[in-house]
Amino acid sequence: MNPRGFFLVVEGPDGAGKSTLIAGLEARMRKARLDPVLVREPGGTAVAEAIRRELLRHDREWDARAELLYFTTARADLVHHVIRPALAQGRTVISDRFFLSTEAYQTGGRGVPVAEVRAMTGIATGGLVPDLTVVLDVPPEVSEARRKHEGRSDDRFEREDRDFHARVAAYYAAATGPGIIHLDGRLAPERVLLSSWDELRGKDPTRFPGRVD
Amino acid sequence: MNPRGFFLVVEGPDGAGKSTLIAGLEARMRKARLDPVLVREPGGTAVAEAIRRELLRHDREWDARAELLYFTTARADLVHHVIRPALAQGRTVISDRFFLSTEAYQTGGRGVPVAEVRAMTGIATGGLVPDLTVVLDVPPEVSEARRKHEGRSDDRFEREDRDFHARVAAYYAAATGPGIIHLDGRLAPERVLLSSWDELRGKDPTRFPGRVD
Repeated sequence: MNPRGFFLVVEGPDGAGKSTLIAGLEARMRKARLDPVLVREPGGTAVAEAIRRELLRHDREWDARAELLYFTTARADLVHHVIRPALAQGRTVISDRFFLSTEAYQTGGRGVPVAEVRAMTGIATGGLVPDLTVVLDVPPEVSEARRKHEGRSDDRFEREDRDFHARVAAYYAAATGPGIIHLDGRLAPERVLLSSWDELRGKDPTRFPGRVD
Repeated sequence: MNPRGFFLVVEGPDGAGKSTLIAGLEARMRKARLDPVLVREPGGTAVAEAIRRELLRHDREWDARAELLYFTTARADLVHHVIRPALAQGRTVISDRFFLSTEAYQTGGRGVPVAEVRAMTGIATGGLVPDLTVVLDVPPEVSEARRKHEGRSDDRFEREDRDFHARVAAYYAAATGPGIIHLDGRLAPERVLLSSWDELRGKDPTRFPGRVD
């Protein structure tokens, strides 16, 4: 299904440490002479970037299914134009969020039945499944504190109330499935990085060597 | 549901005479001092125009459900940003195609179950239903001859084979529902225009007066 390439997804609530982990993995892959393709959802194509701007607007009321629809179309476009071609060329793809985010936010957060979300995922991905999904679990109070500490400008999702973020975090914490592993996002970034690299090595030791320095 | 405004949709296969009818209706509405909002699907917003460009590309293979997804997102964006606000202001909106096109092409043409198409329509429209849908019925050989006579550059849908167009035309011909009326697209344009105007008058005689010249 993913001919030759390797598809890694990093998931978790805002403030879980996804960006830090991805930066660390990218550096480590470059040392290993891999040239990873980095993508971030939603975005990465003309259609998906137009959708991203729309989704993050503060002056629009969204219902949960419309939100699901827009995320799904952005994902379909990214999979078609970027992820599948890169995997077909044997590249390593790292995605900051993928369909598990949609389940966590739209099902966990907003209450859309997971069967509906998964039907939409099927349309968007055509059955493409990540080789590895690293979920960084953090309790909502930690992710909130980190977002504030970093002085990020909150997007529309980050402005949701604490109950919403608790439901999202709980959905992530309970997520299971092929290739999904969980790491404690409260650990030191270097430990999260090393554990993630070990998981990659376990999946594809040729691509991800044990020592790179 | 459509507070104060009037929502007219013109439907039918390519070459049925939709553009000619819409031009005639627009001219007649302007004489009646109406200032109609004209929209065309897919398109009309930043998201929908990006999707339109993608949908009409010849160098992409589509599956039927991905196509449905993109059309649905474009429609959701147009409904939210253009159609609903115009209707809320009391305007008359004329749309060149709406959800019946999706049923005719994706269900009639491609075989996606109509329940799936309608579930997507519900997400896109939030229950908004046209006050009047004029379906122009023409047999596939007539629409094909007209497209060739006009020397149009075929888009991706127009390039489908004759069986596809026959299934689309058959779906249109059988379509029923609230506010849907059928006119024979082979009649002279002036007769189609007069019949359409009569239907408008029947729905809202104050907005659409009998004589305007």
